[in-house]
Amino acid sequence: MDKDPLKKYLRDRQAEVDQLLHSYLPGPKCPPPLIHEAIRYSLFAGGKRLRPILCLAAAESVGGRREVVLPFAAAIELVHTYSLVHDDLPAMDNDTYRRGKLTNHKMFGESTAILAGDALLTAAFALMAEKGLAGTISHKKILSVILELGSAAGSTGMVGGQLVDIQSEGKKSIDQDELHYIHTHKTGALIRASVRIGGVLGGASSKKLTALTRYGEKIGLAFQIADDILDVEGEEKEMGKSVGQDQAKEKWTYPRLIGLERAKKEAHVLVEEALGELNGFGPEADPLRGLALYMVERKK
Amino acid sequence: MDKDPLKKYLRDRQAEVDQLLHSYLPGPKCPPPLIHEAIRYSLFAGGKRLRPILCLAAAESVGGRREVVLPFAAAIELVHTYSLVHDDLPAMDNDTYRRGKLTNHKMFGESTAILAGDALLTAAFALMAEKGLAGTISHKKILSVILELGSAAGSTGMVGGQLVDIQSEGKKSIDQDELHYIHTHKTGALIRASVRIGGVLGGASSKKLTALTRYGEKIGLAFQIADDILDVEGEEKEMGKSVGQDQAKEKWTYPRLIGLERAKKEAHVLVEEALGELNGFGPEADPLRGLALYMVERKK
Repeated sequence: MDKDPLKKYLRDRQAEVDQLLHSYLPGPKCPPPLIHEAIRYSLFAGGKRLRPILCLAAAESVGGRREVVLPFAAAIELVHTYSLVHDDLPAMDNDTYRRGKLTNHKMFGESTAILAGDALLTAAFALMAEKGLAGTISHKKILSVILELGSAAGSTGMVGGQLVDIQSEGKKSIDQDELHYIHTHKTGALIRASVRIGGVLGGASSKKLTALTRYGEKIGLAFQIADDILDVEGEEKEMGKSVGQDQAKEKWTYPRLIGLERAKKEAHVLVEEALGELNGFGPEADPLRGLALYMVERKK
Repeated sequence: MDKDPLKKYLRDRQAEVDQLLHSYLPGPKCPPPLIHEAIRYSLFAGGKRLRPILCLAAAESVGGRREVVLPFAAAIELVHTYSLVHDDLPAMDNDTYRRGKLTNHKMFGESTAILAGDALLTAAFALMAEKGLAGTISHKKILSVILELGSAAGSTGMVGGQLVDIQSEGKKSIDQDELHYIHTHKTGALIRASVRIGGVLGGASSKKLTALTRYGEKIGLAFQIADDILDVEGEEKEMGKSVGQDQAKEKWTYPRLIGLERAKKEAHVLVEEALGELNGFGPEADPLRGLALYMVERKK
């Protein structure tokens, strides 16, 4: 997919995800208003909706209908947003800005931010169950998708990765295995699950699901390496947050461990490999192909 | 149910719930070990398992099989434990002891406690999906139970109640409606859901489910009032935590708002009403009857 059609694709899908989230979540005046304000503040802070878009594109790549998959794609964004709200907390990464706006706890206070994250995570599962009950996809598939998201987000997935990331801060050294663990769990697990959930709901054959899974693992890692590179090279204005934060916090990243040039090369190799996984797919997988390149070419 | 059979009932059910949780959760050495240690520390800290036992007793009261309902009962305990770990955090209730042991964040640090709570909540939904896929109950019922738990725990349920509770601390006055909102949401929503989930999975008719729902609402409120009374009158040694905390934190409670004697009377009236809801049930509901009385007679 060329750049302009991809831009339009991203914009259109983002609007669909936003619309579903807007209409699903309790309004900002629903009691207690503060929690719903805080939820909406972080959820509608200009996120790119990359994970739900990957989910939708994966469903399309195997001939699935986007509108049927949309609520489950949106649920992934709820999990992602909860993880950002909690990661930003003073006891965690202690961040002041996110996407050019004050972080949730700076805006609403720490207790509200903890609860808003809790509520976002809970809402993800309620959303899947509710839309699963009302929709046309088999209830068995819905349960397998709930299990997929729960496993990817839990103690042996995203939460485990975040814990090891925090433990590694300030360490004198770290080996590539440990950094690989952090990246594949903290960021990779949810991206992999996004692609797999789209595949499962879209009706992928087991062969295509295997290819999609590998695609998801590779772009997940490429995404995190690109993120680390942007933290070194990105423009603060475009990023909407302070750059150089990883170094300031003594975080371990690919650029720090293997150098900036090798990290860039590694990210591009991963994207090439991800594209290779899609060889057996037709033009329906063009959005997935465009998204793989976007992972390493984005400026924010 | 007399006191001695009830004691045995509680002990036996508690052992069943504990056993399921032990075998389901990753072992304390599963990577990353720290998160699984922290999860198990709070989960196996001697909780009474009241919510899962209510769920099991509700299933039995309508002729359901306990062993089929057990994983879903255990999932409720995961949600309850996450809520305790997060409620104890410095930004929330800032508690040092819980059930006679240091709170999770005092033991493992704040970031680990936040993540352990997140992982517990996530595990609740993964457990329900996994056991639902493997079991004999219809997948539709499993989804409705996931929705029930998600709604009860979320921003318009338990999390909403906790937020209003924190907002009300230190206020000069509060009206009975607001206190009622806090109690029915912070504690009541999950207790109500526990009873309802047991009823649904046990195969309750719609008439019996309505009666169980009302029973759950009434004992939920009675439980919270009894909790507030114990905070005034309880023995520190038996409670395993400091008493008088509500007053120290200027929390609003029934004893504070309407006086100790009226609060005690109110709790007993609620239990009587809850028992009345079970009039159409046979001796299979005896455990539920015993549990209603236990709510207000317990010493911890």
